[in-house]
Amino acid sequence: MGSAMAVPLSDNGHDVRLVGTHLDREIIDAIRSTGIHPGLGRELPSTIHAHQLEEAEAAFAEAEIVVSGVNSVGLEWAAERLAALLRPGQLVIAVTKGVRAERNGDLRILPDVLAATVPGDVREQVGWAAIVGPAIAGEVAARRETCVVFCGRDETLIDRLAEVFRTGWYHVWTTTDFVGGEICAAAKNCYALGIGLAEGALERRGEADSADRAHNYEAALFAQSAGEIRRWASLVGGDPATADWLPGVGDLYVTSTGGRNVRVGRLLGTGLGFADAAVRLGNPTLEGASAIRVFGETLDRLVERGVVGPEEFPLMRHLHEVIALERPVDIPWSRFFGGEPARVA
Amino acid sequence: MGSAMAVPLSDNGHDVRLVGTHLDREIIDAIRSTGIHPGLGRELPSTIHAHQLEEAEAAFAEAEIVVSGVNSVGLEWAAERLAALLRPGQLVIAVTKGVRAERNGDLRILPDVLAATVPGDVREQVGWAAIVGPAIAGEVAARRETCVVFCGRDETLIDRLAEVFRTGWYHVWTTTDFVGGEICAAAKNCYALGIGLAEGALERRGEADSADRAHNYEAALFAQSAGEIRRWASLVGGDPATADWLPGVGDLYVTSTGGRNVRVGRLLGTGLGFADAAVRLGNPTLEGASAIRVFGETLDRLVERGVVGPEEFPLMRHLHEVIALERPVDIPWSRFFGGEPARVA
Repeated sequence: MGSAMAVPLSDNGHDVRLVGTHLDREIIDAIRSTGIHPGLGRELPSTIHAHQLEEAEAAFAEAEIVVSGVNSVGLEWAAERLAALLRPGQLVIAVTKGVRAERNGDLRILPDVLAATVPGDVREQVGWAAIVGPAIAGEVAARRETCVVFCGRDETLIDRLAEVFRTGWYHVWTTTDFVGGEICAAAKNCYALGIGLAEGALERRGEADSADRAHNYEAALFAQSAGEIRRWASLVGGDPATADWLPGVGDLYVTSTGGRNVRVGRLLGTGLGFADAAVRLGNPTLEGASAIRVFGETLDRLVERGVVGPEEFPLMRHLHEVIALERPVDIPWSRFFGGEPARVA
Repeated sequence: MGSAMAVPLSDNGHDVRLVGTHLDREIIDAIRSTGIHPGLGRELPSTIHAHQLEEAEAAFAEAEIVVSGVNSVGLEWAAERLAALLRPGQLVIAVTKGVRAERNGDLRILPDVLAATVPGDVREQVGWAAIVGPAIAGEVAARRETCVVFCGRDETLIDRLAEVFRTGWYHVWTTTDFVGGEICAAAKNCYALGIGLAEGALERRGEADSADRAHNYEAALFAQSAGEIRRWASLVGGDPATADWLPGVGDLYVTSTGGRNVRVGRLLGTGLGFADAAVRLGNPTLEGASAIRVFGETLDRLVERGVVGPEEFPLMRHLHEVIALERPVDIPWSRFFGGEPARVA
């Protein structure tokens, strides 16, 4: 996604320096020798210059904006690097999706985790923002119509960033609901994994080649997910309405259409345990599963503290049971939407 | 869908009499001779008895609940029949999705149109309700997990209906937001047609076989649709929150996954005009297109009356331009979500 973001920037005439992590060495080499990003399978604009990690200091020098594209597992690693590289006046905009929690269950958004690592004097003089909303990297790189939301606490800053990135096909709205936007982005990966269960459940019934698939099942999970995402946004002090547009239902929609989180969900739906499902996929980074662990453990703390009712978040609780406790999938339908009245015998 | 509803009823031990319209003659004959519903491609439970239209009076006699499954085009025809058949004390639950409008632009939900045809004394003694939420008929007939919402003005009535239909796999919630629920059901067909444009637009670019498809595009339309559906619900005096769960985003999700509305949308996205696209599909009943005409003309009236701002509902307005005025597809992205700030040159 970091590389894809270089495309609208390049379209707007900006000089872009792409810095790989130690895990991206071959990607950077490939871009340098062929111009093609092997992950995106697409030629990058010639104005984009690729750099290995050792060249980061030179690449960062005089950079106006820093786009952080590491995944959530690499966040603490990236934070240490950024702490040494950032200079006062630079703006950091993150595309990483994920969440961390304090011991008491309070959730922390990743840009705040990133910022906390940077020495105080620099941190205060750096701008922090993030990109949320439905944007699959390959489609951004292909210049397909995409609508996103830049979020941050400083309205002037996010307006300025939006102007730098906005093109005729990369549409940018803004919100100052930083925590709400970032929680939506983290939670939607979890719920997309949940929506993936539907297709697996159909396979288990031997009806996977059915023309109408399991869309009623998926749609019910989607609707319950939308409600839980709204509640997460309000729990962290954000605006629940942030879940109602691009950062919430929009991003949940696009994430449910495919990707690793959905694929692992499908395997779980067929009856495989989480560890086995992860092995089957080659143990990839599963940001949805990581976030489910954080949200699930947080729920236990928040219920203990009386902040959340024990009947709230039935879907996230069940996802946590499946992922962290290896329990079989058994969707608690009747606990959805505030609870279905009991059946009369 | 009327036939599919017979499956949970039959599972709950109810005697079900299925009455076809004059257009369903062959379907009824097929069910009688083979037990298989040719539209659903599935055997119906043996407790379901199929009747031709001439036998409607006998079928209605002593019926407790009447499920109305005609499509919106046949609504006025069905209303006339029901006016003669209904008896005091019967409960009518409708699955028809659509909307009608007064000359001044005020919208009317279909159960109210149906009820208005019934003589006053009977009308007052009949209960009126509707089923909304994500339920593809073929999946209900296959007993796949489905979550729906029964809506009506009388809470006791819809609770009673819910108890009659609810099974271990057909989950029923209720809401007294009758107008909100019904407007969501009508509007979602329009917006699903809109989401279908995405794939056609990709075909037009010659990228239809691209692995990542046009999901960013679809997801942005989905998010804008969700916002416009909320606003429709409040415009008719319903609760905007009705759009946030099964009746709104849930049903929009399932409707966007396929069906005739999406298929005509795809053809429009490739550049075909509406009349040509309809011919290409064999001129089927397109409930989304019919409802777009109603909503679009209503918007003109409501703007004239100052009830709706001219900048509201940019997606529905554009769908109306495409369907009713045969204008080319040109999504007004920058008018979405309250308006994107203009690009700085």
